Order: sequence, then C-alpha cells, then structure tokens
Amino acid sequence: MDSLKCSPVVTICGMEKTNIAIVGLGTVGTGVARLLLDCGDRTARHAGRTMWLRKAVVRDLEKARQRIDLPEGVLTDSLDEVINDPEITVVAQLIGGLEPARSIMLRLMESGKDIVTANKALLAEHGPELFDRARQLGRSIAFEASVAGGIPIIANISQCLSANQLESLEGILNGTSNFIVSQMDEFGTEYAEVVAEAQRLGYAEADPTMDVDGTDAAQKLAILAHLAFGATVDWSTIPRVGIDGLDPVDLRYARQLGYRIKLLAVATLGEEGLELSVAPTLLKIGTPLAEVRNAFNAIRAVGDAVGPVFYHGLGAGQMPTASAVIADLIDTAVGRTKLTFQTLEYFSSENPARAIQRDTANIRGRFYLRLSVANDPGTLAAIANVLSRNSISIASVIQHESESTLDPNSQRPDRELVPLVIMTHEASEGTAVAATAELEGLDAVEGSVTRLRVKG
Amino acid sequence: MDSLKCSPVVTICGMEKTNIAIVGLGTVGTGVARLLLDCGDRTARHAGRTMWLRKAVVRDLEKARQRIDLPEGVLTDSLDEVINDPEITVVAQLIGGLEPARSIMLRLMESGKDIVTANKALLAEHGPELFDRARQLGRSIAFEASVAGGIPIIANISQCLSANQLESLEGILNGTSNFIVSQMDEFGTEYAEVVAEAQRLGYAEADPTMDVDGTDAAQKLAILAHLAFGATVDWSTIPRVGIDGLDPVDLRYARQLGYRIKLLAVATLGEEGLELSVAPTLLKIGTPLAEVRNAFNAIRAVGDAVGPVFYHGLGAGQMPTASAVIADLIDTAVGRTKLTFQTLEYFSSENPARAIQRDTANIRGRFYLRLSVANDPGTLAAIANVLSRNSISIASVIQHESESTLDPNSQRPDRELVPLVIMTHEASEGTAVAATAELEGLDAVEGSVTRLRVKG
Ligand SMILES: NC(=O)c1ccc[n+]([C@@H]2O[C@H](COP(=O)([O-])OP(=O)(O)OC[C@H]3O[C@@H](n4cnc5c(N)ncnc54)[C@H](OP(=O)(O)O)[C@@H]3O)[C@@H](O)[C@H]2O)c1
Ligand SMILES: NC(=O)c1ccc[n+]([C@@H]2O[C@H](COP(=O)([O-])OP(=O)(O)OC[C@H]3O[C@@H](n4cnc5c(N)ncnc54)[C@H](OP(=O)(O)O)[C@@H]3O)[C@@H](O)[C@H]2O)c1
Repeated sequence: MDSLKCSPVVTICGMEKTNIAIVGLGTVGTGVARLLLDCGDRTARHAGRTMWLRKAVVRDLEKARQRIDLPEGVLTDSLDEVINDPEITVVAQLIGGLEPARSIMLRLMESGKDIVTANKALLAEHGPELFDRARQLGRSIAFEASVAGGIPIIANISQCLSANQLESLEGILNGTSNFIVSQMDEFGTEYAEVVAEAQRLGYAEADPTMDVDGTDAAQKLAILAHLAFGATVDWSTIPRVGIDGLDPVDLRYARQLGYRIKLLAVATLGEEGLELSVAPTLLKIGTPLAEVRNAFNAIRAVGDAVGPVFYHGLGAGQMPTASAVIADLIDTAVGRTKLTFQTLEYFSSENPARAIQRDTANIRGRFYLRLSVANDPGTLAAIANVLSRNSISIASVIQHESESTLDPNSQRPDRELVPLVIMTHEASEGTAVAATAELEGLDAVEGSVTRLRVKG
Repeated sequence: MDSLKCSPVVTICGMEKTNIAIVGLGTVGTGVARLLLDCGDRTARHAGRTMWLRKAVVRDLEKARQRIDLPEGVLTDSLDEVINDPEITVVAQLIGGLEPARSIMLRLMESGKDIVTANKALLAEHGPELFDRARQLGRSIAFEASVAGGIPIIANISQCLSANQLESLEGILNGTSNFIVSQMDEFGTEYAEVVAEAQRLGYAEADPTMDVDGTDAAQKLAILAHLAFGATVDWSTIPRVGIDGLDPVDLRYARQLGYRIKLLAVATLGEEGLELSVAPTLLKIGTPLAEVRNAFNAIRAVGDAVGPVFYHGLGAGQMPTASAVIADLIDTAVGRTKLTFQTLEYFSSENPARAIQRDTANIRGRFYLRLSVANDPGTLAAIANVLSRNSISIASVIQHESESTLDPNSQRPDRELVPLVIMTHEASEGTAVAATAELEGLDAVEGSVTRLRVKG
C-alpha cells in the first residue's frame, strides 16, 4: 500500500460526484477505503467524476481494526445511515458469509443502491434470488472481486470474449490451496505444517475448510460456468475433491513423471453437456497452469473464435481484491454496469439454462493411480488384468522395489508392500471408479487406491 | 471456423436491432462478417439486440475473395450506401494503412456512425485528430482489435485495471516476429528461410518490414502507453530495434546462458518519466514471457494495487482478431463504448500528458554483449578494462576456444578470431552504448559488437 502513487480525493469544481458507502470494513473493505481516500485522482480520471466515500459501516465501533484514517463522520455502526441517505447510490458490500450479508444486500437494493460485492459464497448460494430482485428493482450487482481476486475474469468472460462460444475453462481458483500445494511440492513439507504457515501469513483463515475441501473453488466455478455457458449450477452438485487429503508422496511421484499437482476447477462443454469438476489434478510441468505458484490464480479459457486465452494474477489479498472492487465501483458509477446487467440477465429464473450439467461418470480423461501392493510375482499381472477388463490401457508404470515396507497396521503385517504408480491412457471417470473398486478388492492390493486426474 | 457452434442471425419479434456495416472485407472483415451472419444467437444474447450486417463495402466487386455467402444486397463497392443510410449506426472499419482509411473514418463519423477499428497504424499516426473529431461529433471509436489481436488488453488496461497506477507493461506484441524468432530458436533455421515460411503460412505479409523492424510493436506500445500512463507518444520516437538483424548465434548463446530472445516492447514508469522501447531482449527460460511461442502474444502488466497480471493469447489471425472486433461492436451497440469513450478522453489534445517520455540513455538494465575477438593473451584484460572504466561490471563470460575462425573479410585475415559473450550487471543504456563504441575501437575486437537487453 505504501507504494501507491496517487493523490487523495479530489473535488474539482463542477465535476459530478458519486457517493459511495462500504458495508463491512475488514480486509477487503479497508483496501477499498484506502484506494477511495488516497487515490481520488485516479478514480476520478477513470470515472469522470469524484468517487466520494461517504460512509463505512462496521458492526462494532470499538473493535481494533487495521489502521485507516477515515474522515470525521464516515465510520458508523448504523446501516440505516446508508439506507436512509438517498445521495449514496453505490454500496460496496464487503461482509462475508450468507447472513446477514443476504438480507443487508436486499435492504440496500430496496433503498435504491447499486451493489458491488466480493462475496462468492453468497452469489453461489443465493444468486438467482438476488439477481432477480435487482432486476425487479432496476438495480445492478457487480461481482468482479468474487472470482480470482485481482484477475478481471468476470468482465473478460461476460464482455471481452463475448464473440465466442467458450469451449472450456480451466482454473486455479483458490489461492490458499495453491499456496499449500506449492509449498508441499517445493519443500516436501507436510500438509498440516503448511496450513499453519498459510495461517501465519494470512493466506488461510482460522478455519480453512472451505478453501481446502474445494468448496470455495466449486462456488467460483459455478459462477464462471453460469457466465460462460449459461448453465445454472448448484455449486454443491459439482463433484469436488479438495487438497486436504493430498499425500506428499503423490506430489513426488507426479514430479518423477513430469507433472505437478494443482487443485484444478474445470468446465468443459461437450456434445452431451457441461462437465464440471474440482479436483487435485496432474498438470504437465512447463505448461502455464502447472507453473502457477503460491497464492496466484490462473484461468485458461478456450473460445471457438479467439482460441486459448490465459490469465494469471493474484487471486486474493487486500489490494488485488480491492482493485477488482474499485473497477466495479467505477463501472457502476459511470453506468456501464447497468447496461451489462440489463443485457446479460445473469441468473435469471426466466431464462432457460443453455447448458445442462453432465454426469461426471462420462467425463473422459487420463488417470494417475497409486496402489500399495504385495511385493509378489503375479501382482502386476492381476492389476493389469483388472484394468484391461475395464478397457483401461496403461501408459506407464513406476515401481520402486527399494521402497518396500512392512505395514504393522495391515491385516497381514508380515507381507512386504511396495508402492505402484500407474498412468493410464484415456478412460471415462465411471470406468476408472469401477476399476478402482475392483483393484481395492484384489488380494494383492493393500488399503485404498489413490486416483487423480491427469491433464495435458 | 467450421468449429463454430452457433446459429445464424436471429430476429426475435420486438427485439431491438443495430444495423452494422463492414468497410474492408479482407482477412479480418471476412471473419467479422462470418460471426455476425453465422452466430447471431450469440451476439444477440450478449448485446440484448440483433446485430444485423446491412452492408459490406469492398473496393472491387470482381476481386476473388475468401468464400463467404453474403445475403443479397449486402456486398457493395459504394461507401455512400453506408454514409447515406441513417439506419446504419455502427461501422467496423477494417481497411489497413493510413489513406484512404483516415478520410473514410472521418466521413463515417461525420455521417453519424460510431466506429470500431483494428487499424493500429492509423491510430498511432492520427489518434489525436481522429479522437478529437469523434468527441466533437459525439461519436466513439473502439479499437480493441488494434493491439494484441484476441487478447482484450485495451479493455483490461482502460477499465478492468482502472484502480491501479500501472508501473510497467512488458509485451510480445508482434506475432509475426515472435513466430520467426521462435522458429529460429527451436529449429536453428536462418532468418530468411523462416520469413518465407511465415509468408507461406499467412503469418507474415508479402512485405513484412513493419512487423520485423519493430514498427508495428512500437505503434501498439504507443497506444498502450497512452491508455496506461496518459502519455501522448509519437510512436516513431520510441527507440526500436527489430528482429531483422538477429543472428541465430545469439539465440544459441542466450540458450546456453538460460535465456530466450524475444522482441519485447516495454513501458516502465520510473521516477524520472516513462521509459519506452522495443528491442530483442533476453528473457529467462521458464518465465512466462520467455515461453510465448509462435504467433502468440502476451502482456505482463504490473499495477500498484493488483500486482502483476499476465495475459496470453493469439495476437493475430482472422478469428482471434474478429473476436475482438465483435466484442467492440457489441459494446458499442449496447452503449458501453460511448460511456467509456466520453469518460476516458483518449488522446485528447486538451488533456495535459500525465507522463513524460524519458531519454533511453538513462534506462538501466543488464546487457548481453557478443564480440568477435583476437585469440590472443591480453584480449580479455583489454575488454574488461573498457567495461570497468565505464563502471559496467561483468556477471559472466563465455568464450569457446574451439570455435576459433579466420575471417577472410577482415583487414587482418591471418589472425584467429573467437566469439566472446559477456553478460553484464546493471548499467544505464547510455553507458552501455558508450562502452560498446569503445570496445569496437579496440584493436583486439573485430567488427561490430552485438548488444542486447536482458530481463529477469
Ligand atoms: N480477503 C480476500 O482476499 C478476499 C478475496 C476475494 C473475496 N473476498 C470476499 O470478500 C468478503 C470480505 O472478505 P474479507 O476478507 O474482507 O473479510 P473480513 O476481513 O472478515 O471482513 C468482513 C467484515 O464484515 C464485517 N461485518 C460482518 N457482519 C457485519 C454487519 N452485520 N454489519 C457490518 N459489518 C459486518 C466484519 O465486521 P467486524 O470487523 O465487526 O467483525 C468485518 O469487518 C468475503 O465475502 C470474502 O469471501 C475476500
Ligand atoms: N490480419 C490480422 O491478423 C490483423 C490483426 C490485427 C489487426 N489487423 C488490422 O486490421 C486491418 C485489416 O487487416 P486485414 O488483415 O483484414 O487486411 P486485408 O486482408 O489486406 O484487408 C483489407 C481490406 O480493405 C479493403 N480496402 C482497401 N481500401 C479500401 C477502400 N477504399 N474501400 C473499401 N475497401 C478497401 C481491401 O479491399 P480489396 O480486397 O479490394 O483490396 C481489403 O479487403 C489492418 O489495419 C490490420 O493492421 C489485422
């Protein structure tokens, strides 16, 4: 922040003014307040008017907050000071969670305010209700900051690439997970240790469950899938696997095979519908998505006219997210948001879905399988047999005799186990699931089989 | 094109219609016509209205063109049919070059049409005149397709990243040059041979001078520098070196040192002004810009709030460029372009420039120097001496005795020459230029010294 090169709020004689309120002065809200207060020259230039911060609403005036000097009279704990002020026309609603965020957003719109929000959980859960209500009221909701932080992916998909039927989206959409996986991969650190580190650095919340179990990425994917494919997706129906169960050993084997593992959110429009999923996925080293490190996010979109377009930037954090919120505030003040909002009819319950979500059992792809197997002659033949019966062909195998171990928790603690890693050729997810179950039933296979997707 | 999944023009009862004309039915114009004709469902959805192709103006009706079925009455060789039709409100002006493109654009605006164009040469040369006239007339000019083809960099810089003071832009902005350099690098092919190949593939024009000598990249950089930094830059004042003089040997040495060479356009806002340049530059292998291949373009922007954002996509070609034109046509039809255009006052002669272009002599950076030197004791000392006197310190040296040669064209054809490659630490461009001249004056140095920039 200290490196921002700008001048404080300007009020140029005769220049129009848009009065703004922030509701929720946490990490993102504070960043937005700073940009509005300290960089008025720049927002005025891009908006052609003064962007004036009139109120900042908090729950508790006494709570210690990140230092920010608000002008006299701006900070309040009364939402009514915003609701009842007709001169405030645009509100950055930066409270997290579902309630009271939802009710507050409805009240703000009912009192005539246009909304800018960063709350993906709220949109993923209550999008249709909130957007329908906004349309009824002639209001708009802008939500650039809700997906991929500083990367302007919402504007890019819904406006810049509008000539295209998008064919696929692949994204690293959760910065916390990516930070964790990158650190595990680079330094071989254990999962729990990196999570603690991420919390120390402020990347992960006190309860990082929604980040690491794939919920956050699935909610963002549901929003993107709606914009890109016109699908109305209940995020909770997106098959998702998080990184919380990831074993460092798989990162190591993947690297030996020339891959990195990333939590990848995928939407692909196939002949038979829209395939959506969030899962740890092997990505070929050297390809752009595989090289996304730490708290960065990235999205690869493929359009039928433009071809592949790749975006990379910081997916979270105070100032990157505030950057997206400010862009939305400017668009809303200028009037562009309203035009876009009216035209695109986001999440309209009257618009039939243009794409139907497809059962993941039909999704085809390559798989990485790791098994713990008895170090016996015949083991590999038995496994190959199962795969072959399921029409899954093997692309490569790694088996390290040298890593053989005895497992004291095994039902047969006396037999020697070795890790076996198999890369398959393309197969359907359904077949892979069935084959995995069959493998787990083999006498030669100990415990459960790790199965991961492979891309590129 | 055959893979476009869409339905032809739709006219839904009661739906508004925007009548469009295309002037110039070449590569890009034909792509735009196809998207308008074949994908009316998609443009209608994004524009909330039918985007109707009413006229396509060519110079010569008899000329053989890329096959496209235009409805009866659309094709014409009379610009007046557009000028005199008040129902045509938006025109995609897709003629290349300066004249008659400039006069046609002025006439179209004077007859009340909003303009969408892909012509960067025209904007770089006549931007202020055209934009001032557009403002006087209450018209707009949209130009997404003029820089980086399918990558929506214009919208991203002027709208999506508007919360930021950009600190730098680095871009690979000329697809033809990048194709040529990539091929030379990957296959060791000679320059002339790759140029011929690029022409066969349709990447390079019959006369590729403006692409390979850096003119095209400098024109695009001038446009981006205006949007990002408010600088009004005469593109011809941007120091530029093309790839036309690039020796394959430098690609090879760069690779040995861990770098690739790319034609890089750079704009950096420093304390003392804006540094602009276009030059073949060594980029560290594995960094995103170094890995941009073939006809792809890429841009890395750094903002003071958002941090680094990276964009990658096809920088030219019929459909990627048409994708950008269609996005502009939709924005213009919807009314967003007008709002942006009025607010941002592009190239306004009334707005003082916000950034002053700085003399490149002050730009600091690292350098790659390649010299052909006498294979004598004392040579290296003499060279090190010159550098040291100029306060340039050496980071690394490669000298291959085994590559020693006799140069029959030398004034001293009997002396053995060896190539010497030096990577320097940071120095100012001015110092590097002075040192280069001094080195060329040394008795031990044969011919001229190759000097390239190094980044990352
Ligand atoms: N942080 C990021 O990097 C990031 C990135 C993208 C999107 N987002 C999204 O942005 C939103 C905000 O995130 P954040 O990181 O800024 O969260 P945060 O730091 O927890 O801040 C949330 C703020 O909302 C306030 N609040 C809660 N209930 C309120 C109420 N009834 N009235 C007024 N204020 C209330 C809280 O007030 P108290 O201080 O009084 O508790 C707190 O200051 C979330 O939806 C999040 O998912 C965040
Ligand atoms: N091609 C790309 O990938 C690309 C990418 C980005 C930007 N651009 C820019 O887009 C513009 C068009 O490029 P292009 O590749 O489509 O060029 P092109 O294939 O040479 O087409 C130009 C067209 O303009 C027509 N034209 C010239 N003078 C005319 C006049 N007085 N009246 C009517 N039509 C006239 C030509 O007509 P005739 O056919 O009768 O000669 C030709 O069809 C250029 O400014 C270029 O820099 C191109």
